[in-house]
Amino acid sequence: MTGVQVAVIGSGAEHEARAEAVGGLLAERGATVVTGGLGEVMAAAARGAKSAGGTTIGILPGERLEDANPWIDHAVVTGIGHARNLAVVASGHAVIAVGGSWGTLAEIGFASRLGRRVVILEPGLEVEGVARASSAEEAVELALGSG
Amino acid sequence: MTGVQVAVIGSGAEHEARAEAVGGLLAERGATVVTGGLGEVMAAAARGAKSAGGTTIGILPGERLEDANPWIDHAVVTGIGHARNLAVVASGHAVIAVGGSWGTLAEIGFASRLGRRVVILEPGLEVEGVARASSAEEAVELALGSG
Amino acid sequence: MTGVQVAVIGSGAEHEARAEAVGGLLAERGATVVTGGLGEVMAAAARGAKSAGGTTIGILPGERLEDANPWIDHAVVTGIGHARNLAVVASGHAVIAVGGSWGTLAEIGFASRLGRRVVILEPGLEVEGVARASSAEEAVELALGSG
Amino acid sequence: MTGVQVAVIGSGAEHEARAEAVGGLLAERGATVVTGGLGEVMAAAARGAKSAGGTTIGILPGERLEDANPWIDHAVVTGIGHARNLAVVASGHAVIAVGGSWGTLAEIGFASRLGRRVVILEPGLEVEGVARASSAEEAVELALGSG
Repeated sequence: MTGVQVAVIGSGAEHEARAEAVGGLLAERGATVVTGGLGEVMAAAARGAKSAGGTTIGILPGERLEDANPWIDHAVVTGIGHARNLAVVASGHAVIAVGGSWGTLAEIGFASRLGRRVVILEPGLEVEGVARASSAEEAVELALGSG
Repeated sequence: MTGVQVAVIGSGAEHEARAEAVGGLLAERGATVVTGGLGEVMAAAARGAKSAGGTTIGILPGERLEDANPWIDHAVVTGIGHARNLAVVASGHAVIAVGGSWGTLAEIGFASRLGRRVVILEPGLEVEGVARASSAEEAVELALGSG
Repeated sequence: MTGVQVAVIGSGAEHEARAEAVGGLLAERGATVVTGGLGEVMAAAARGAKSAGGTTIGILPGERLEDANPWIDHAVVTGIGHARNLAVVASGHAVIAVGGSWGTLAEIGFASRLGRRVVILEPGLEVEGVARASSAEEAVELALGSG
Repeated sequence: MTGVQVAVIGSGAEHEARAEAVGGLLAERGATVVTGGLGEVMAAAARGAKSAGGTTIGILPGERLEDANPWIDHAVVTGIGHARNLAVVASGHAVIAVGGSWGTLAEIGFASRLGRRVVILEPGLEVEGVARASSAEEAVELALGSG
């Protein structure tokens, strides 16, 4: 049976430390961390989850299993480029955005469209109607729906 | 040879009149109008283009050619649900957003990620770093790159 | 309103002449020719259709409108790689396969799954349960459902 | 780091016992079992893997995590309908087909196109140029590349 899965999205080398913290906290809470499987925020969130003994899924845009970063336990190779952003957020019961740019905006749009709970970790993209958290701890609490 | 194509995206019945105006102006300027092929803003933009003697393409999320609205000349059936939003904006040399909600936000994210020129017609979504137009005429001029 | 659309699929330089004939006959019968928008069979079918005064749609796997071959009137840029094969066949009321390899096999599978009428032009792939035609004329007649 | 992953594809209630055997043997060999996440052959392969203490991934066509069968450990929600077939086979280092129909044919086409090792378990689809196995044991050995 599928356990709780949380997608961590975003980009930007300057956001890696916070993404790693988010990944670690999610793993401590027993949630599987889903990411896009590549570098920067995606790699940091997976690294954080693995350091805390968690499980990670990477949903890749390309056609090669080898493209997954070293902290991915289970790689999914979609072959559909940026359209895999939909799969990343749809595969989370909730979504946490750390940093990010246009691709992250597309993911927030899709996640909200599908009714997934979305949390933007400060500082982050400005999107009206999306919950914001001021710390990794708060982001994870909002994502997992408890306090 | 493919001519100039402009994607018109968005949703909301209250925005149909402006979408129809945009579609008509694009057709008058010789641009093919690309939409998601369904109702509201998508149908209005196509209707406006057809009224002005233009050509329309509808890129559908489902699996049936029959789902296209009556103003679509050429229907493309993707079968990939919301992921077809990527195809809609990628198929335009430029993109004009009229109204819209979460799906439109995803489209603006993808269009910007792919380097397409994006114009939001006022009133519309608030997205930092995206050009805005106060009238259908201005939106079309910005999209087509002249003025 | 969307007219009759027929997808021409396949690959192999040695099949171009027959693909061009199929494209031409479809155009003479008033059908719009849908292809994957790139080279070989895809280009030949579109070239045949344009020579006969027809209309062509190219559904591209990449992210650039410029990738369409010169005989494409309307390019659709999906950005989803091989997954665009589904869109190519789904966008035809019927499908004609000319030559082809593994990608064509995937398309025949999808087209049959979606209930599209599929015709393999001899010589071509061996797929049990799919209609075969011994000439371009017969393929077009079978695809358009008359005689 | 991603371990060895094998996709089990196919359909047909009459093939469930053999799919369950394949799933069990793959798990015993330490391979993660990837399927389309729904019923019949997909459910049976996952059930077999779980019975043998293995790990399973289900790559779903729809938009809901809840659609995964009860033997899926990690569900990936693609939202792209039949186009998810590409992701299923691309996510395996090898692919084993058990029974199946048109969707399976599309998967065999895609898997071969991407250079994945494909094995059809007898009795199964007839596809020229694809390896065949006469037992679940042989299929797993061919898929994992030893013997």
